[in-house]
Amino acid sequence: MQVAIPLFPRFTALDAIGPYEVLQRIPSVEVVFVGHQRGELRTENGMLGVTCDATFAEVPAPEVVVVPGGIGTRVLLDDEVLLGWLRSVHPNTRFTTSVCTGALLLAAAGLLDGLTATTHWGSADRLNELGARYVAHRVVEHLPQRIITAAGVSSGIDMALRLVELLVDRESAQAAQLLIEYDPQPPFDSGALEKADEATKARVAEFLQSRK
Amino acid sequence: MQVAIPLFPRFTALDAIGPYEVLQRIPSVEVVFVGHQRGELRTENGMLGVTCDATFAEVPAPEVVVVPGGIGTRVLLDDEVLLGWLRSVHPNTRFTTSVCTGALLLAAAGLLDGLTATTHWGSADRLNELGARYVAHRVVEHLPQRIITAAGVSSGIDMALRLVELLVDRESAQAAQLLIEYDPQPPFDSGALEKADEATKARVAEFLQSRK
Repeated sequence: MQVAIPLFPRFTALDAIGPYEVLQRIPSVEVVFVGHQRGELRTENGMLGVTCDATFAEVPAPEVVVVPGGIGTRVLLDDEVLLGWLRSVHPNTRFTTSVCTGALLLAAAGLLDGLTATTHWGSADRLNELGARYVAHRVVEHLPQRIITAAGVSSGIDMALRLVELLVDRESAQAAQLLIEYDPQPPFDSGALEKADEATKARVAEFLQSRK
Repeated sequence: MQVAIPLFPRFTALDAIGPYEVLQRIPSVEVVFVGHQRGELRTENGMLGVTCDATFAEVPAPEVVVVPGGIGTRVLLDDEVLLGWLRSVHPNTRFTTSVCTGALLLAAAGLLDGLTATTHWGSADRLNELGARYVAHRVVEHLPQRIITAAGVSSGIDMALRLVELLVDRESAQAAQLLIEYDPQPPFDSGALEKADEATKARVAEFLQSRK
């Protein structure tokens, strides 16, 4: 079973690597990182390089697509190579999915038209502008349409476990969970906008400002 | 603040990328991936390549070290370049940490002698043989010794949030949590050995066998 994960300049690493780490635990799965051209791509801040191993043209029929997000999505909303590839492969995938602002790319390709979907909390309005209907859930499934979207960054891990259940079976998904020891014990409870206090939100604003 | 994450052939991606994704959200942090030589390193299964940007010699004084695990640790337990580097940098770090079987490398370097520590559940005995005392906790801290170990793979995310609290402050850690939307909602509860049922453990055994 071939899983394609598109990469692009300034992607968010965990969006891609969370689902990769779950999915690659399944022996029948082959994960391929795909992009405009083969070679290294760097994350938003440039601190991490990941290899793109195949071009979009070389991966014409993946069974699963997981589109990560990142600030780099902003310049891809009219990229016809990427969007055209998404439109071309989607009719034959078992599931076409996104993590974080990867949903903006699915929306820009027209795959979320009129559907409820999720993305990073900071991009909810942008997702609506692109024709989807944002809902603040961690994972949003449309099984008849074979579309699943996950919220910000770390939510791709939760989505990928559900994806294994859908693609293989529940025991395999639980085995992947045990192998990656995903028994989360976050030391704080500030992982969602409605749970975060004002001081945390103010710090987020400072951090985003400093990265500009 | 420089954070060094060692890479080596056949490392586990999420062990490294989970903490990276948390730590890089802090504007004062610079993360550098370090290894025997610069260039691409592949994960256990070869499906993912990540760039090592600096040699150990080029990173002589990191303030934080996060050692990931992976099957590749097995051939590094007497690697004097890596172990020597760990011994040489530890006296001057603020924290020396590991995720998953990265703890075996800290132990092999002598940094866990007589200390309680954690690792992936599958490597508990090996950790004890190397002089540490395994405890089945998700994160084990020794603040006077400046040593923190995390359990398998995904636990590095929890550890990194705590590390930000220790290195900067709680608001910054909570801001990182909100930025990566770490509000885990795993669809199953099989992420720890004592929570997994027999069918899940049997499937794990099959998966491990098939990867040999």
